Amino acid sequence: MASPAHARTELDRALSGDVRALARLLSLVEDGSPRMREVVADLLPRTGQARIIGLTGAPGVGKSTMTGALVGAFRAAGRRVAVLAVDPTSPFTGGALLGDRIRMQEHATDEGVFIRSMASRGHLGGLAAATPQAIRVLDAAGFELVIIETVGVGQAEVAIASLADTVAVLLAPGLGDAIQAAKAGILEVADLYIVNKADKPDTQQVVRDLRNMLALGTTEPGGWKPSIITAVATRGPRDEGVAEVVTRLDAHWDWLRSSGELQRRRHARAREEITALAFAALRDRVTKSVDELAARVADGALDPFQAAEEILAEQKD
Amino acid sequence: MASPAHARTELDRALSGDVRALARLLSLVEDGSPRMREVVADLLPRTGQARIIGLTGAPGVGKSTMTGALVGAFRAAGRRVAVLAVDPTSPFTGGALLGDRIRMQEHATDEGVFIRSMASRGHLGGLAAATPQAIRVLDAAGFELVIIETVGVGQAEVAIASLADTVAVLLAPGLGDAIQAAKAGILEVADLYIVNKADKPDTQQVVRDLRNMLALGTTEPGGWKPSIITAVATRGPRDEGVAEVVTRLDAHWDWLRSSGELQRRRHARAREEITALAFAALRDRVTKSVDELAARVADGALDPFQAAEEILAEQKD
Repeated sequence: MASPAHARTELDRALSGDVRALARLLSLVEDGSPRMREVVADLLPRTGQARIIGLTGAPGVGKSTMTGALVGAFRAAGRRVAVLAVDPTSPFTGGALLGDRIRMQEHATDEGVFIRSMASRGHLGGLAAATPQAIRVLDAAGFELVIIETVGVGQAEVAIASLADTVAVLLAPGLGDAIQAAKAGILEVADLYIVNKADKPDTQQVVRDLRNMLALGTTEPGGWKPSIITAVATRGPRDEGVAEVVTRLDAHWDWLRSSGELQRRRHARAREEITALAFAALRDRVTKSVDELAARVADGALDPFQAAEEILAEQKD
Repeated sequence: MASPAHARTELDRALSGDVRALARLLSLVEDGSPRMREVVADLLPRTGQARIIGLTGAPGVGKSTMTGALVGAFRAAGRRVAVLAVDPTSPFTGGALLGDRIRMQEHATDEGVFIRSMASRGHLGGLAAATPQAIRVLDAAGFELVIIETVGVGQAEVAIASLADTVAVLLAPGLGDAIQAAKAGILEVADLYIVNKADKPDTQQVVRDLRNMLALGTTEPGGWKPSIITAVATRGPRDEGVAEVVTRLDAHWDWLRSSGELQRRRHARAREEITALAFAALRDRVTKSVDELAARVADGALDPFQAAEEILAEQKD
């Protein structure tokens, strides 16, 4: 299907640096507009260049401040940076994000920086579907780095690993985070650990806990050994450890490209995405009969495996 | 398909109180044996009577001790109880469960109690598929109560809600659990909050935090208002609050049946289960071409929506 001339113009405008057109394009993608598909198909040939960094950790570890510090460091090196702040927290705890964003307004007037908050609106599935498209938009718009910052513990952290080329987990002393991170399965997915607020007591204890837990994992020959960096991200020039974080992020990027891991991760990411899209489409198509089948299974009149087969059989008609 | 006579005999034995036959049946279900389907179909008419209670919370809150105390209280009332302890933690933290189980050995010689640990072996998806079948086995074997105890924070807690009729969340002072529970989205799914280890300082602070967070939620007219109970579960006769927990669990069960919510939850549970089974079957069938499609998407040569359509189209052939 040919795109309307209007949409093309809007796309060109967004991709050539018009911040308001870019914001509108992201809204379109975030809202799951019918035009999204067309837009994604159009910008696809211009994607694949951006480096996607996931930054995650529990509330209170200083993610937004660290993101701001990293944006500053990347900008000082002349790189264009986009930040996607994804908030999958429940309605019970919503609203914190906007306050966090305000802390990053020192970059608000810099055209080399684009910051976007995506809220889940209580629908994690929709957010998961929209985020890869938002990344494609920012990639096509020429941002060399896209930082995805997520709030929360558990699902979000593990999900981010399927979207980012590099996953950095932020911890802080005094929050019992190392243990929580282990329980949530985050330790297995991180390429880099940043112990932030390292001017606080117990920093070395967090580092030791992390080292002990990492010692249980194995690194294959030629594999990447996650490093642990202590840092104090601030809103001023007194940052500590941020330069080292940038150095290790760059080292990981070099390793990703030289080892073939980048291609492997991106294929895996595409595989997850298209499988999820296929399943979502299937779910939409079978909605009507699933309720009836479910009622029969709940009543003990139909076994669940038979019900599953009927769902798939219906699909073939 | 008719079941072999041997399998029927084994099933009858398990369902009539032979503990070793029951354990073998659960192993068969847990391992995803090809015979599982047949077994589930055979026992299905005998299911639907058991009351499923989910008990969940972060490591260290005393879940196993509370489970043991509840088993004792239910046994004192003459009820047969089964416990399914599901451990979805990562390989990094595995091994704790066995130690926990040992604490419940006071019930080891009681024929009215059956305790089974299910480990994820690093494969959460397999565990999620096996647990509903294990519940059916215990239900058909005549246990009036099935307690599902899960370890961890996040995914597991939210997943349990789709399996249990009643979800109880356990917290303890000093672990920052109320906040963590809120972030993980657990608060929305709980029917009952138990603040365990209530002889410790900060108990009232946890209760206040919980109350404040719950005050943000809304209860529909005729709906269930989750209660907060303080308790001290021990391994001896000095339990505090356990009787009140039992009273509230019973009250919730009465409400579930009188409000129609029980049927609604069980339909929703069956719906989740059969959809997941259908998706798993679909995933198996399309594995071959998905890799090729994913590579083309990763290379920017095919858009993900088109790829998803091709997966579903292949399904129709």
